[in-house]
Amino acid sequence: MVDAAIRRAKELGAKQNVAVLDEGGNLKAFGRMDGAPILGIEGCQRKAFTALYGLSTEALYQRIKDDPSRLIGLSHFSRATVVGGGLPIRVDGELVGGIGVGGGTVEQDVACAEAGLGVLNAV
Amino acid sequence: MVDAAIRRAKELGAKQNVAVLDEGGNLKAFGRMDGAPILGIEGCQRKAFTALYGLSTEALYQRIKDDPSRLIGLSHFSRATVVGGGLPIRVDGELVGGIGVGGGTVEQDVACAEAGLGVLNAV
Amino acid sequence: MVDAAIRRAKELGAKQNVAVLDEGGNLKAFGRMDGAPILGIEGCQRKAFTALYGLSTEALYQRIKDDPSRLIGLSHFSRATVVGGGLPIRVDGELVGGIGVGGGTVEQDVACAEAGLGVLNAV
Amino acid sequence: MVDAAIRRAKELGAKQNVAVLDEGGNLKAFGRMDGAPILGIEGCQRKAFTALYGLSTEALYQRIKDDPSRLIGLSHFSRATVVGGGLPIRVDGELVGGIGVGGGTVEQDVACAEAGLGVLNAV
Repeated sequence: MVDAAIRRAKELGAKQNVAVLDEGGNLKAFGRMDGAPILGIEGCQRKAFTALYGLSTEALYQRIKDDPSRLIGLSHFSRATVVGGGLPIRVDGELVGGIGVGGGTVEQDVACAEAGLGVLNAV
Repeated sequence: MVDAAIRRAKELGAKQNVAVLDEGGNLKAFGRMDGAPILGIEGCQRKAFTALYGLSTEALYQRIKDDPSRLIGLSHFSRATVVGGGLPIRVDGELVGGIGVGGGTVEQDVACAEAGLGVLNAV
Repeated sequence: MVDAAIRRAKELGAKQNVAVLDEGGNLKAFGRMDGAPILGIEGCQRKAFTALYGLSTEALYQRIKDDPSRLIGLSHFSRATVVGGGLPIRVDGELVGGIGVGGGTVEQDVACAEAGLGVLNAV
Repeated sequence: MVDAAIRRAKELGAKQNVAVLDEGGNLKAFGRMDGAPILGIEGCQRKAFTALYGLSTEALYQRIKDDPSRLIGLSHFSRATVVGGGLPIRVDGELVGGIGVGGGTVEQDVACAEAGLGVLNAV
């Protein structure tokens, strides 16, 4: 999944950090492209962790963006973020982990995370 | 209290984390339902801790929501949150702890926390 | 200073946490009234620390409240807050520390911090 | 670079903290002027770290200020801030570090950081 996300990043001209967490929130795989901003190391892990909620971080943001208590509150949790680029990983409908990508624009981050998920369909 | 909150969660079809803190802010009891989002582990403890202020986290939010200094400021405290779902626990009018529930919608979280409190009346 | 702040709190019917930091940001004195919310332990220390900037936390908030980069940014610093109730301590015009009070309303917090400072004038 | 930033601060009558990080985010040089607010110790390091993204913290703020998910989200990262006063350090177009200044007004912070960068052109 990390390789697939990085391949997509190369196509987009982005430099990304990619994290995959298992369902327990523990880091399973991680890759940082040469030149990717180190700010994204934390960012992509927060995104992957938050996606374990069962929603993409973008969808979660859309759900809570008009409620400051949750928007601000959730952002304060130690390992959470509602910045786009985190996606839940599901196998046969069951949540088994999260993938997060950080370093590019939100659109690039999301595209690369989706590319990572795409590997599952290709198996 | 944790059991009662979880029973209510089952009725609502929610998957919850439930924390009970004593009046010193220390964890007294905790339960996580199978499949409950791990994001809520921190969330429910923050809610319970904040409720030790003597107000539900929802009521506290209503009180400070129009003052950014307090809304943003309080959310930054290490163990606080103003997301709904935290309730003070009182026995004979005296604050003896806090209960927090996290993992569902705010409405579900509040309902389950209230169910936890309901045990006290039933004793 | 802590005693004076607590005396004022009693007059106001508030239950407060009071912290005094030296100019290096280290805790010099602290007092928590019986029944004061433990949420305020962190709060009053953040207020006192932030006041070492040389402004009351209220004045700092007024200065930055219309600039989200600073309002949100500053609130994220590990030991800062712009919630009212922190005052710089000056002796002969020189900054020698900060006092912070947390646990009541902002008005009560500020009044108690001012009472703490009042000791200096009485010496 | 730290010396140059401090010289500029003296001209402006500001009391600054100045941090220079290498491209790995590790502190390379730091200076705090007598009387500079200790709040700025963390601030200037956050600014320098964030500038490793490849943009000034001001430019990053301008880019994300209308998107609460990123404005609030990024501010929560452990070492990030979008307060002005952080600049990327480039040599021959390549990012080699970040400089951050904190303690004065944002305008002063930026001016001092730019003065620090100016040393590179003078070499």
